[in-house]
Amino acid sequence: MEPRPAVTSPTGDETVRLERARAAERRDWRTWPVYQASELGLRNFWYPVVWSSEVRRRPVSVRLLGHRIVLCRDDGRVYALEDRCPHRGTPLSLGRQHFPGTITCPYHGWTYRLDSGVMCAAITDGPESPITGKVGVRTFPTAERLGLVWVFVGAGQAEVPPVEQDIPEELLAPDVTVGGRVQSGRRGNWRYAAENGFDEGHAKFLHRDALWAFFRQMPVWTEVRIVRTEDGRWLSRRWDGVYWDAEFPGVGRWPPPRSWRRLVQRRPKPGQRPKVHPRIAALRLPGMVSVRVPYILRVAYSTYIHYEWAIPEDAQHHRYVQLMASFRPSRLGQLWFRLQYLAWIRWVFHGQFTGQDAWMVDVMDIPPERLYRPDASVIEWRRLVEEQHRESTPSVERT
Amino acid sequence: MEPRPAVTSPTGDETVRLERARAAERRDWRTWPVYQASELGLRNFWYPVVWSSEVRRRPVSVRLLGHRIVLCRDDGRVYALEDRCPHRGTPLSLGRQHFPGTITCPYHGWTYRLDSGVMCAAITDGPESPITGKVGVRTFPTAERLGLVWVFVGAGQAEVPPVEQDIPEELLAPDVTVGGRVQSGRRGNWRYAAENGFDEGHAKFLHRDALWAFFRQMPVWTEVRIVRTEDGRWLSRRWDGVYWDAEFPGVGRWPPPRSWRRLVQRRPKPGQRPKVHPRIAALRLPGMVSVRVPYILRVAYSTYIHYEWAIPEDAQHHRYVQLMASFRPSRLGQLWFRLQYLAWIRWVFHGQFTGQDAWMVDVMDIPPERLYRPDASVIEWRRLVEEQHRESTPSVERT
Amino acid sequence: MEPRPAVTSPTGDETVRLERARAAERRDWRTWPVYQASELGLRNFWYPVVWSSEVRRRPVSVRLLGHRIVLCRDDGRVYALEDRCPHRGTPLSLGRQHFPGTITCPYHGWTYRLDSGVMCAAITDGPESPITGKVGVRTFPTAERLGLVWVFVGAGQAEVPPVEQDIPEELLAPDVTVGGRVQSGRRGNWRYAAENGFDEGHAKFLHRDALWAFFRQMPVWTEVRIVRTEDGRWLSRRWDGVYWDAEFPGVGRWPPPRSWRRLVQRRPKPGQRPKVHPRIAALRLPGMVSVRVPYILRVAYSTYIHYEWAIPEDAQHHRYVQLMASFRPSRLGQLWFRLQYLAWIRWVFHGQFTGQDAWMVDVMDIPPERLYRPDASVIEWRRLVEEQHRESTPSVERT
Repeated sequence: MEPRPAVTSPTGDETVRLERARAAERRDWRTWPVYQASELGLRNFWYPVVWSSEVRRRPVSVRLLGHRIVLCRDDGRVYALEDRCPHRGTPLSLGRQHFPGTITCPYHGWTYRLDSGVMCAAITDGPESPITGKVGVRTFPTAERLGLVWVFVGAGQAEVPPVEQDIPEELLAPDVTVGGRVQSGRRGNWRYAAENGFDEGHAKFLHRDALWAFFRQMPVWTEVRIVRTEDGRWLSRRWDGVYWDAEFPGVGRWPPPRSWRRLVQRRPKPGQRPKVHPRIAALRLPGMVSVRVPYILRVAYSTYIHYEWAIPEDAQHHRYVQLMASFRPSRLGQLWFRLQYLAWIRWVFHGQFTGQDAWMVDVMDIPPERLYRPDASVIEWRRLVEEQHRESTPSVERT
Repeated sequence: MEPRPAVTSPTGDETVRLERARAAERRDWRTWPVYQASELGLRNFWYPVVWSSEVRRRPVSVRLLGHRIVLCRDDGRVYALEDRCPHRGTPLSLGRQHFPGTITCPYHGWTYRLDSGVMCAAITDGPESPITGKVGVRTFPTAERLGLVWVFVGAGQAEVPPVEQDIPEELLAPDVTVGGRVQSGRRGNWRYAAENGFDEGHAKFLHRDALWAFFRQMPVWTEVRIVRTEDGRWLSRRWDGVYWDAEFPGVGRWPPPRSWRRLVQRRPKPGQRPKVHPRIAALRLPGMVSVRVPYILRVAYSTYIHYEWAIPEDAQHHRYVQLMASFRPSRLGQLWFRLQYLAWIRWVFHGQFTGQDAWMVDVMDIPPERLYRPDASVIEWRRLVEEQHRESTPSVERT
Repeated sequence: MEPRPAVTSPTGDETVRLERARAAERRDWRTWPVYQASELGLRNFWYPVVWSSEVRRRPVSVRLLGHRIVLCRDDGRVYALEDRCPHRGTPLSLGRQHFPGTITCPYHGWTYRLDSGVMCAAITDGPESPITGKVGVRTFPTAERLGLVWVFVGAGQAEVPPVEQDIPEELLAPDVTVGGRVQSGRRGNWRYAAENGFDEGHAKFLHRDALWAFFRQMPVWTEVRIVRTEDGRWLSRRWDGVYWDAEFPGVGRWPPPRSWRRLVQRRPKPGQRPKVHPRIAALRLPGMVSVRVPYILRVAYSTYIHYEWAIPEDAQHHRYVQLMASFRPSRLGQLWFRLQYLAWIRWVFHGQFTGQDAWMVDVMDIPPERLYRPDASVIEWRRLVEEQHRESTPSVERT
């Protein structure tokens, strides 16, 4: 066993290694300036926000990267506008669609085009109102994929990439079936949720009693390497060594020798590999858990894949989107997965299991912090953000 | 139709007109420095605060222009004192009247004269207590009119005008009957409530479905001129043109051609004038709605007049006082009006109708703002405050 | 009767007297710089925190002088540690004792020695984890006396005195029986609670109707001298003159001549002295009520003594610990006292009576303040803090 497992990176040389070792000693986030400044999230990305079925004519208000945004549907399309009438600061989401393709402020009837955000009629000032066409609200690009409404939150004059660029490719296949949950107002900054998600260390301890892992023993610890996927967009956690039992000098044995877990939990037999669904195998993932910006977590099981997003609402809250995707061409197979999702996965994985994470994301409070070896996962994630964020002007200066 | 209706003012020249047009473009309140600084209200005015019947021996605590004030009644008169014992900062309103003409702090028995605020006995330090007569709390002039307790909140050494100066003259007639509501803790800065009250534009849209207007069609828009009353104290909104129907190019027709409102709501016939009560006609009001400082709104109907006050409590809350006054010399007429008020006006006008306003006053959030033509009403109101506020030293400097 | 009773102090000369008279005129706390800076309490003292019976293996979280502290018991001993894992800022109190003599963070299994606070195993990084032994959390000295857990909150490198130094000596006798209440989250800064406790003036007025004093008349006012106990550690309030009735010129008579209290309340006969328990008499207390730093109040009745502590949690809240102690060698006597405590004292004195104090401590709001003659008690208390606080560097500089 190597005393300190290396972290693999595109450059990968000794200088980087040393620098990261130092970063681990640091107790603040100055090492990652873009990340440190991203309290309200990364702009110029597409985010899944709400189920398509929940957006109809009646406006829906959401908070996203600090913006208040109103969503509504007209003639089948979903529109997203800044949720504030520039006249008196009233939320447009309290208004209604009185005319096709528009939304009207409830206070004075200022009416905005859903597509452009331009104010096209000030009802209470008549058709000749000189202000008509001279004010407007910001609009946000939208798309619908996977039964979800996606919103692009841009900065400045950034070009809008196709939404597909921000959706894991395998999810765009026609035979994907998904179940999922969308939770707003989850407590904690989005970075806490993201770091918790890709964090190598916590699952083995925090989740050791989760129902989801009732029959599966968790390792005590692992030697981990953080590697890139072939396309360079994802970080993945690869286990070089897995330890199921350990004696801690002067402390004791873990897991406890006389635990009820011993009776029910089984560890995988050496060399045993579960039968992996061919579509998942085809992804050639370096490890079970991977992550990419702006924070998409992917946890590949043998027959389905879990995805999650933590999307900042404000500095203290985030929207938490969880999906479980299965790849089955047949109708019956899809129905079977939906049943499985509703009967089990939704409550046990997307409920109790990630509920344990929500508990920690709520109470954790960093910086200051003190990182340890498994936090190579966290450090590499922060570096990924520094590298793959999409604002040319440093985020640091925007606040 | 004139493209941009002029705003009439005492000076009324082209310079003023231009200046106001510019002000409308502005998105902050620097144009009106006194108004901008008046977050906590205008001092040196009389304000109606609470029903006379609610002030008895037992002290009542209210918040007014940022002051905590205790009200209580002794020997028939109402007194108002600063609600803080200078000894240990305890609210006097938690105490009682143990001796005639005094109020006593519950903590150490410091006793204050209701009329002067002077501490006249420190019970727990005996009759010879050297501090007796040397400390005191501020008192506020009070009066009772119209079944309400009025309090004068002065600044510095200002002379106290008679309360009549701050009550609309017609309300001082002996045959006035009033019904009304007093609400404390209404959300929003008092200026939001005031601007909402005199705002020309919103009623036609926000209130179009109010029960109060169930049978009355609202115009779509109007050409408005803001004029002064003869005594120069009130601003009034005069309609130079009224439009009941309009086609907004590229948007649609308003009101909607197929609305249920078409079936029940009637617009006044051209030239038709309702029979106005002679006492109301005698006021020779330039328009139905008028306003004066510190914010008294007057809405004249044909047989009664609505008055309202928005009195700052703190920066985020105001006390909202609504009165409906009728002018009837006979006992029977007065009784009939009271019945009308209790059965209808109180719930439909002073309840649901102004409740729609409360909703907007709560959610609006300015500056920044973007004014439009009908906001001539709002701009003139702000100018009126600049002109008629009663502090010689600019309010700007007091904070 | 001397018009202004002198305040006795170690130096006691005219200069001091004058200086204190001036301090009483002051409306802020600059006169007492250590006290003014002690918003979060006095460090280097032992504080009673929680009943011993409430601290078991399961961790308990408390707030003390601004610190979050986790308490737990292992092998009979109570330990106190900083309640924050330095790794990710998670409260250790959410964790458990998985190994003897340790507490483990619930998130990643970082395990800390209860005695030293050193992190002795990072479960999820294996036995060879390089961080093991290199991080730790602060520990706080603890002791158990009188059925309570005591915690020492030190500053810098201060030596830890024996807990006995901060417990009134008489409470360390073997035949002491105590009953009491511990309340956390009581509102108001700890200094408000302390000043309320030793305050000479309020009891006679605020508590005049308390059940605890149902049959006992309170004096109207007293001439008071604040004196030191023989050991110099306690201040005591001595009454030089007691007045049961007074006519306040131009105000009236107190107590009111026609009060129901006249029927039931009795004042002690002149010269009458209640029979004092020999152990209490042996204390030779200069007055019934005494106080010492960091705020221990002692109110000596004839057969038992009340003690109280107000221990800062944060700037707005304190922990309030009340004890009633009786000195009885016999088993039967002890049982009798316990019955008395549970049936009467707990509800009437440690409930309704001190509940009146809690009400005032919550609403009072100083500085500014205006002191009066009986506040010699408050002034001397503040001086005692200036003199007997235990930080060599002035507290003023630490914030």
